[in-house]
Amino acid sequence: MSHQIPEKQWAQVIEKTGGPVDYKQIPVQKPGPDEVLVNIKYSGVCHTDLHAVNGDWPLERKLPLVGGHEGAGVIVAKGELVQDVEIGDHAGIKWLNGSCLACDFCQTGDEPLCGKATLSGYAVDGTFQQYAIAKAAHVARIPKDVPLDAIAPILCAGITVYKGLKESNARPGQTVAIVGAGGGLGSIACQYAKAMGLQVIGIDTGDEKAAMVKKLGAESFIDFAKSSNVVKDVQAATEDGLGPHAVLLVAVNEKPFQQATEYLRPRGTLIAIGLPAGAYLRAPVFETVAGMKTIKGSYVGNRKDTSEAIDFYRRGLINAPFKVVGMSELNKVYEMMHEGKIAGRYVVDTSK
Amino acid sequence: MSHQIPEKQWAQVIEKTGGPVDYKQIPVQKPGPDEVLVNIKYSGVCHTDLHAVNGDWPLERKLPLVGGHEGAGVIVAKGELVQDVEIGDHAGIKWLNGSCLACDFCQTGDEPLCGKATLSGYAVDGTFQQYAIAKAAHVARIPKDVPLDAIAPILCAGITVYKGLKESNARPGQTVAIVGAGGGLGSIACQYAKAMGLQVIGIDTGDEKAAMVKKLGAESFIDFAKSSNVVKDVQAATEDGLGPHAVLLVAVNEKPFQQATEYLRPRGTLIAIGLPAGAYLRAPVFETVAGMKTIKGSYVGNRKDTSEAIDFYRRGLINAPFKVVGMSELNKVYEMMHEGKIAGRYVVDTSK
Amino acid sequence: MSHQIPEKQWAQVIEKTGGPVDYKQIPVQKPGPDEVLVNIKYSGVCHTDLHAVNGDWPLERKLPLVGGHEGAGVIVAKGELVQDVEIGDHAGIKWLNGSCLACDFCQTGDEPLCGKATLSGYAVDGTFQQYAIAKAAHVARIPKDVPLDAIAPILCAGITVYKGLKESNARPGQTVAIVGAGGGLGSIACQYAKAMGLQVIGIDTGDEKAAMVKKLGAESFIDFAKSSNVVKDVQAATEDGLGPHAVLLVAVNEKPFQQATEYLRPRGTLIAIGLPAGAYLRAPVFETVAGMKTIKGSYVGNRKDTSEAIDFYRRGLINAPFKVVGMSELNKVYEMMHEGKIAGRYVVDTSK
Amino acid sequence: MSHQIPEKQWAQVIEKTGGPVDYKQIPVQKPGPDEVLVNIKYSGVCHTDLHAVNGDWPLERKLPLVGGHEGAGVIVAKGELVQDVEIGDHAGIKWLNGSCLACDFCQTGDEPLCGKATLSGYAVDGTFQQYAIAKAAHVARIPKDVPLDAIAPILCAGITVYKGLKESNARPGQTVAIVGAGGGLGSIACQYAKAMGLQVIGIDTGDEKAAMVKKLGAESFIDFAKSSNVVKDVQAATEDGLGPHAVLLVAVNEKPFQQATEYLRPRGTLIAIGLPAGAYLRAPVFETVAGMKTIKGSYVGNRKDTSEAIDFYRRGLINAPFKVVGMSELNKVYEMMHEGKIAGRYVVDTSK
Repeated sequence: MSHQIPEKQWAQVIEKTGGPVDYKQIPVQKPGPDEVLVNIKYSGVCHTDLHAVNGDWPLERKLPLVGGHEGAGVIVAKGELVQDVEIGDHAGIKWLNGSCLACDFCQTGDEPLCGKATLSGYAVDGTFQQYAIAKAAHVARIPKDVPLDAIAPILCAGITVYKGLKESNARPGQTVAIVGAGGGLGSIACQYAKAMGLQVIGIDTGDEKAAMVKKLGAESFIDFAKSSNVVKDVQAATEDGLGPHAVLLVAVNEKPFQQATEYLRPRGTLIAIGLPAGAYLRAPVFETVAGMKTIKGSYVGNRKDTSEAIDFYRRGLINAPFKVVGMSELNKVYEMMHEGKIAGRYVVDTSK
Repeated sequence: MSHQIPEKQWAQVIEKTGGPVDYKQIPVQKPGPDEVLVNIKYSGVCHTDLHAVNGDWPLERKLPLVGGHEGAGVIVAKGELVQDVEIGDHAGIKWLNGSCLACDFCQTGDEPLCGKATLSGYAVDGTFQQYAIAKAAHVARIPKDVPLDAIAPILCAGITVYKGLKESNARPGQTVAIVGAGGGLGSIACQYAKAMGLQVIGIDTGDEKAAMVKKLGAESFIDFAKSSNVVKDVQAATEDGLGPHAVLLVAVNEKPFQQATEYLRPRGTLIAIGLPAGAYLRAPVFETVAGMKTIKGSYVGNRKDTSEAIDFYRRGLINAPFKVVGMSELNKVYEMMHEGKIAGRYVVDTSK
Repeated sequence: MSHQIPEKQWAQVIEKTGGPVDYKQIPVQKPGPDEVLVNIKYSGVCHTDLHAVNGDWPLERKLPLVGGHEGAGVIVAKGELVQDVEIGDHAGIKWLNGSCLACDFCQTGDEPLCGKATLSGYAVDGTFQQYAIAKAAHVARIPKDVPLDAIAPILCAGITVYKGLKESNARPGQTVAIVGAGGGLGSIACQYAKAMGLQVIGIDTGDEKAAMVKKLGAESFIDFAKSSNVVKDVQAATEDGLGPHAVLLVAVNEKPFQQATEYLRPRGTLIAIGLPAGAYLRAPVFETVAGMKTIKGSYVGNRKDTSEAIDFYRRGLINAPFKVVGMSELNKVYEMMHEGKIAGRYVVDTSK
Repeated sequence: MSHQIPEKQWAQVIEKTGGPVDYKQIPVQKPGPDEVLVNIKYSGVCHTDLHAVNGDWPLERKLPLVGGHEGAGVIVAKGELVQDVEIGDHAGIKWLNGSCLACDFCQTGDEPLCGKATLSGYAVDGTFQQYAIAKAAHVARIPKDVPLDAIAPILCAGITVYKGLKESNARPGQTVAIVGAGGGLGSIACQYAKAMGLQVIGIDTGDEKAAMVKKLGAESFIDFAKSSNVVKDVQAATEDGLGPHAVLLVAVNEKPFQQATEYLRPRGTLIAIGLPAGAYLRAPVFETVAGMKTIKGSYVGNRKDTSEAIDFYRRGLINAPFKVVGMSELNKVYEMMHEGKIAGRYVVDTSK
């Protein structure tokens, strides 16, 4: 396989905080000894990318910056030390562009906690360009029978919810409540949970979401807006009425969080995945201590979670809806996102 | 061994909410088929007993009531079904007087979460009497080389902190911060932690407590009243500056709790053991999720924790200070407790 | 609900070692304070029952003896201490008729290891009678929407393979090889494994078994008689060629056991469930140590495993083939079993 | 800090299979981009080094070869990619010189199982030279308050037994039997076990070893040559007579292995660390399955185990006896080793 790497490429560049992003040609970079150059074909668009434009997270950010952290493509060049992937392999660049691989956390598979981790589309240039660089040890290995457009959103949303479900320690046959089950993360979480042998209680609102969540495999659905007692209803949806063994919180406001500790089963685990900046977790002491309940934060997955999450997709068990547009239209996607008009995931085609 | 069981005995009885307790003679009860009658020799006095007098916990309470749930003595009678303990054995009656042994929680060693659990000195008569009853399967087995007065406080305080340390999943060699290290629970926790191979950072205030905590085996001590930055100081007390792997919260106010999530090491576990009624756990979302931190409530130990906690004592690794007075003086102990004048544990001698 | 308990009942009694069993009327017993009397409707027939007839296991056996340990029926009487089940409830009597519920093992959910465990149809009378007794805490709770004939084999075979799969620590998405996949235990194991989110490699021989195993959900099938290199073929059936994460050995001869440690993935776990009397586990040191492989014995499930295994059945995920005959024909079933002529499970109807 | 790296250095070189090793001057190598050059000060001598001379292990070996894999020294040069260690840091080179850091095993902290792992003093040049190379991510970090001669044997023997104890899952307070407790690995294992809060039963033979093992912290000692029933004696040495929770096998012959499964407690774990080439693990089926016993191979520790094992040493909890001789005398050490004349560990000083 031979691939002619150009000197210039198209990219979407954040020149200043607040945007807009600038669609223009920039130079193609060369990978270092332990890096690969990936010809990005498709890249998913995530809310985090909007935070990168606005620079409103308490993380160090590069400027000017190429955003994007859900990129899937083909390896076209690699450094001299790279042994475990080959030119021509399909690969994904995800939120963790690289990490030190030597610290206490990296040693034990917790590389997302590495103090020297570099973040794609935030601290280093990301995947809204045709040729992106990442540490070879960190790129996701994508089997060739997996379509590159469909896998893009799995590289962030999929891995994150899969990791959360693993962290919950819920075992096959047990019950997990997914709060925000009808949203982007939630709908993917329903599918992973089912594939992992879990029974799902979807919590969200609206008949359309109810229908979708059940179609995705949930055993029951609680409409929090219609229920007069969410705590009772969630518990009643479990076989013995004691509540779900785990709760996955992918909703964004504080109220469901506080409810969740109440309907969580004694000895159960609540996994908090994403919550708004400045927010606080809050739980009544009595229920938490006397019920021996666990509240646990779950961030993004590690490399092992990544390959497992991709494997579930490859086996046909995950089916996340997405829409493809040209990368040149990224500003329009951000506008829709800002207006809350997006259902499912947008994926940009870097060739257009 | 032959023991003449009397018909009448001395007991301290709560006749009405708020007390005082009434020292008087009451009948000795007979054990049911699966129960034992224990001739209580010594019983520790715990803050919970004061709650039983005042009836200010959201739990069903018996009235009139014999309080007490840290009783150590000798089995003098047993029901027809009892096979695993013998008359003459030393035994302890603890907070869990009995449980159903058949529900989902009892099946998996989580009998403190049993919906039918009966609580000594709260829902059933406890150990401030000379002859007390408990389910045979639930009495603590006490080896005969263990003194009955010294083991009494272990039956509640010891088991509780030992359980919390186990729940933290901290492994030998790792570091645990004990918040309230100089108090009753805290000082016992320091000793269990050391015996479990953990490195201890004691957090409390005052030079006397500092000296005691270090004597009990802590590697370092942070005086929260003197420190200008508790979070930094606690982290600095760990080998790599990333903070302790676990935090055991045996303090009673909310401030240390919120600090604790900040100095807790990423991937670390915070164990909440006891907090005031009406209180809320509260933790910043960012540190918790991005640091993958765990907050976990720990209630009392199960039967297995009980025998393990006693075994640590038997081996000479735990040395909790206590003072013995006659059971007839229980009201005075409550008064001192109410005034916050007690250091260490009081134990009553039921023969006086 | 009212049920007239007769004084006499039909039973199959082992009068002497080697059999045959004697179909006759015997008295109905009364349950003790912590026991229940179950009107057995159906009882599965297991190879173990033949061992009970022949008395060729190194376990204490009662004589005369009513065999059987897969009985499903209705509770018709209970002792005074029994609180957690009611007359009219459906219940199952399984291999573990009772245990002390107080020893080190019972305290931690390992009641099959209890030194005082009583075994149905071996040390105490079992389920080949119309009215059988068991400890209330030990009878399996059977939901009323579950048919009593179909659940009978689950009470032994189902629980045992489910337990083995749990003990393997294989996680959803990982691969388990089932050795003897086409047999009685194996075919049920394939279904549990699939329901638990595992990928199954079936190992057995014959086109009929191959077809069945794939129909039950296995991703691949290795015919050990046709394969020229079983070790290579099993490893090739895994995504990365490194072998399955777990192996479940339900076959009865020694050869597959020794092969299994070779194709087992490094860090993988081999679960041995049943092997012939006098046999030895045997594994090469080099592969085991350098590959950090685990070999683990798994006996029967505990009460929690029982309720979980039944719940998988209730949810329609398990479908074990069985044939019903009258209990009076038990000798014929034993003859077929002795001749190795049985495919699937026989269940006796105690009313005939 | 400035260090003049010479062009030539002294080394012990295996020129041909069977030896002897050749003490001579060879060139100093330059580290690659992800490597460090360590000025080795001391290197422990291990039985494995004799296998490297004889080439009698089924592993690929380099020739000519510099042996040694327990080297401690100072980093004097590093490649351009190395960020996490600095020139002047103290570091150790151990059996695992490097691994891919990207495969399934490396991703989860099981780098000793990496298919591309390079082995010091076997597949790549080791530490019997003054300047040795290793992958930066793999060198052991040695705190400066730890003496370099004493830590050398910990880098192999210490890590290996510590890893084995961790793999046993024995918890503080539980009992571990160490078979071969008086030997090189065994005596270090006794100390780690004690530091981890375990109770130790030492198994070996001879009054001298008995005295030493007890001095190292064992609670009891069984002399297998004097005991008329080792199985009974080991079980009797545990509090409840049911046997130890774990057994660590560091002995080299097969007999103790087979005994070990018999006295191992039900649900216990037997850890096999080192056994002779061509040997087989062997255990009776009945005890293993009905007792739910686990047999597990444990190889060398990973990087995390390494830093933890060193930290136990740093804290003064481990005290392995060793003797220092000049590196030029290595042949003599091999001769003594071959004749079985060595007690404790020999360490060579590379400057002599």
